[in-house]
Amino acid sequence: MKIKELQQILKKKKIDFGLFYNVDFSRFSYDLAYFSSYNGVGVLVIPKNKKPFLIVSKMEAKRAKKSKFKVYYPPKSTKLSEFTKEKLKQNKIKWNRIGVNKEEFSLYLKDAFKKVLKKSRFVDLMEDLYKLRETKTKKEIEIIKKGCKISDEILKNCFKRFKKFKTEAEVKAFLEYESKKKGCELAFPTIVASGTNSNKAHHDTENCKLKKGFCVIDFGIRHKNYCTDTTRTIYIGKPSKKEIQTYNFVLKIQKNTIKNIKLNQKCSEVFRQLKTDLGKYAKYFTHGLGHGFGIKIHELPNLTEKSTNKIQNNQLFTVEPGIYLQNFGIRIEDDILINDGKVTVLTKIPKDLLVMK
Amino acid sequence: MKIKELQQILKKKKIDFGLFYNVDFSRFSYDLAYFSSYNGVGVLVIPKNKKPFLIVSKMEAKRAKKSKFKVYYPPKSTKLSEFTKEKLKQNKIKWNRIGVNKEEFSLYLKDAFKKVLKKSRFVDLMEDLYKLRETKTKKEIEIIKKGCKISDEILKNCFKRFKKFKTEAEVKAFLEYESKKKGCELAFPTIVASGTNSNKAHHDTENCKLKKGFCVIDFGIRHKNYCTDTTRTIYIGKPSKKEIQTYNFVLKIQKNTIKNIKLNQKCSEVFRQLKTDLGKYAKYFTHGLGHGFGIKIHELPNLTEKSTNKIQNNQLFTVEPGIYLQNFGIRIEDDILINDGKVTVLTKIPKDLLVMK
Repeated sequence: MKIKELQQILKKKKIDFGLFYNVDFSRFSYDLAYFSSYNGVGVLVIPKNKKPFLIVSKMEAKRAKKSKFKVYYPPKSTKLSEFTKEKLKQNKIKWNRIGVNKEEFSLYLKDAFKKVLKKSRFVDLMEDLYKLRETKTKKEIEIIKKGCKISDEILKNCFKRFKKFKTEAEVKAFLEYESKKKGCELAFPTIVASGTNSNKAHHDTENCKLKKGFCVIDFGIRHKNYCTDTTRTIYIGKPSKKEIQTYNFVLKIQKNTIKNIKLNQKCSEVFRQLKTDLGKYAKYFTHGLGHGFGIKIHELPNLTEKSTNKIQNNQLFTVEPGIYLQNFGIRIEDDILINDGKVTVLTKIPKDLLVMK
Repeated sequence: MKIKELQQILKKKKIDFGLFYNVDFSRFSYDLAYFSSYNGVGVLVIPKNKKPFLIVSKMEAKRAKKSKFKVYYPPKSTKLSEFTKEKLKQNKIKWNRIGVNKEEFSLYLKDAFKKVLKKSRFVDLMEDLYKLRETKTKKEIEIIKKGCKISDEILKNCFKRFKKFKTEAEVKAFLEYESKKKGCELAFPTIVASGTNSNKAHHDTENCKLKKGFCVIDFGIRHKNYCTDTTRTIYIGKPSKKEIQTYNFVLKIQKNTIKNIKLNQKCSEVFRQLKTDLGKYAKYFTHGLGHGFGIKIHELPNLTEKSTNKIQNNQLFTVEPGIYLQNFGIRIEDDILINDGKVTVLTKIPKDLLVMK
C-alpha cells in the first residue's frame, strides 16, 4: 500500500531508497507485508523514483510472486547484502542515503549493509511509516471489514459451544483453530481470563479450569496480513445484581464513547471524557482507551491521555474501556472505522452480558 | 539458562551488563525467554557480577514472577529507558560498556538508550549467545525431550484422523489446535504441502484441497519456550512402485546419516557424506541437512556445506534430508540429541511410508 506516498517522502528527505528486511521466518514482517503483501523472509527495496523489487530465496518464489513486484533470487551462499548491492547497481540506484525503519532494523543489519554499501547513511523512516499507516486506503478498509466479519463468526461459534469447554486453553485453542481453518493467522496471542484471572489486563491463558465469574476474551485474527481486535466479557455461572450493574455501566460508557466520537476531535479528549464518565471506577481503568490497528496490532492513533493524534477520516481504531477490580475485570472492545466523518462499528458480535450457566 | 556462563563472558569482555529488550508483545522474545523464562514485553538486565533483574509493566506481573528474578514495575508514562537508568543507579551498576544482541537490538533502542545512558558503548554479544546456546543444559534437554513427546502424540492423532481432512489448512489447523490445547505454542508456521505443492521446501499452506501424491508435513511446537521440529512425508492415494522406491531411498539415507554421526565430527563432513549418498538425487537436495534448535528454531550447529561447527555433546539438532523433483517432494526430519557421545532420536513417530487411501 501507499508506495507512491512513501516515494514522495523519500524524495523530500533525499533518500535514494527504502530498505526493508525480514530475517526471521517465524516472525511476521510488517514493512514487507505493508508495501508488497509478501510477508516472508527477504529484502524489499523501494527506490525514490523507480519500481520496487524484492530479493527472496528461491524457496519463497511462489509466495513472493503474489507481490506483483520484480523478484530476484540470490544464488546459493551469496550474502543478501552483497546481492542487494549488485541489484542496486544493475537498477542504477545510488546508496548515499538509505531509508530504514529503525524500530525494525537491527544493529546487525546496519553493520552488514555498512560493510557492503560503503559511505552510505541510514535515515530513519519510523515516524513516517506510522503516519502513513494512520489512515487506511479503500483496499485496506475492505480487507479489515472482511476480517472483522470472519472474527465475528468465529466468536459466535465459540460462544455457541462455550459450555463444552473446560479450560481457558480449550477456548483459546478453539478460537485459534477456527481462524486457521478459515486460512487466517492470529493478530496476537488470544487472552482467555476467567474468574479472578480477569482482573489483569494481560492474562497469560493457562491450562487451568474455567472459573466462575466474569471471563474476558481478547481475540484478533490476521486476515490477508491485516489485524482485527475484539474483546468480549461473558459471565460463567449466575451473576449477582451488582455484577450485572457493573457490566452494564461499562457497556453504556463504551457505547457512549463510540457515539460521541467526532471528526477532528483530539484523541486525548476522547480519553479524558471516558475517564470522567467512569467516575469512581476511573482509578480501575489502567490502560489506554484504544489504538489504531492495521498491519500492526498497535498503530496510530493512540487514544491515551497524552496523545497528540486527532480523529481523522479513514482511521481504524479500537475502543476498549476496561476496569480491573480486586476479584474481577471487565473489558469491552470494538473495532471502529471513521469514514466520511461517520463512525462505524465493524465488530458486530452482540455486547449484552452473555451468561453461561 | 546459563546466566553464570554469560556473566563470565561479560567479565572477559569488560561489559558492565547485558541489556535485552522486547518491545513487541506479538513477538516471542528469544533472549528474555532464554535467560529468564519470561517471554513477554520488557527489559532484562544481567550485570556482570550482580543478580539479574527484569523491568515489566504491572500488567505482566504474574508472568514475570515466574522468572525468579527481581522484577521492577515502572510507574505509568515513565520511559523504560529512563526507568532502566534509575534501576541501574539504584543497583550500583555502571554503563560504560553495554552488551546487546545486535540481531535483536534495533536502531530505535540504541538511540533511546544512548539518549539516557550517555557515553556508553554497545558491545555485541550475538556470536557469544549463539555459542552459549549451541550446547544445552540438562534442564533444557529434559524440556525438549518432553516437547518431542508431545509433538509425537499430536502428529499421531493427526495421522489417525487424516482421512477426515479435506484441505491443507484443515490439517494445519488441527495440528495447531492440538498444540494449543496442550498449552503449547508453535515453533513456526506449520507447513502442509500436498501433491505438486510438496516440491517446494517452503510451501505456504493454503486453503486448497489435499491433492493426491506425497504430502510433506513440517510441524514444531514450543513447549515451555523450547522448540521441536519434525517433518513427515505421507502419501495420499496409491503410490507407484517408483514412488515407494524413491521414498525408501530418502528414508534409508536419513537413517544412515543419523547412525553414522560421530562425536567431534565436522558438520560439513556429515553434510558432504549425505550429498554423496544421495547420488543422482543430490542436485534435488536444495537446503541444509539440519540445524540446531532450542529457544530459537535455528541455532547452532549448522549442518551445511560450509559449516565450521563440530558435533558435540549436549547438542540438539535436526537431520532433514529432502529432495524436490518436478512433481513432488520428500523430506524426513527428526530431532537428534548428542549425549555421552551417543546419538538419540527424540522424535519417535514412525517413518515408514504412511499411505492414506
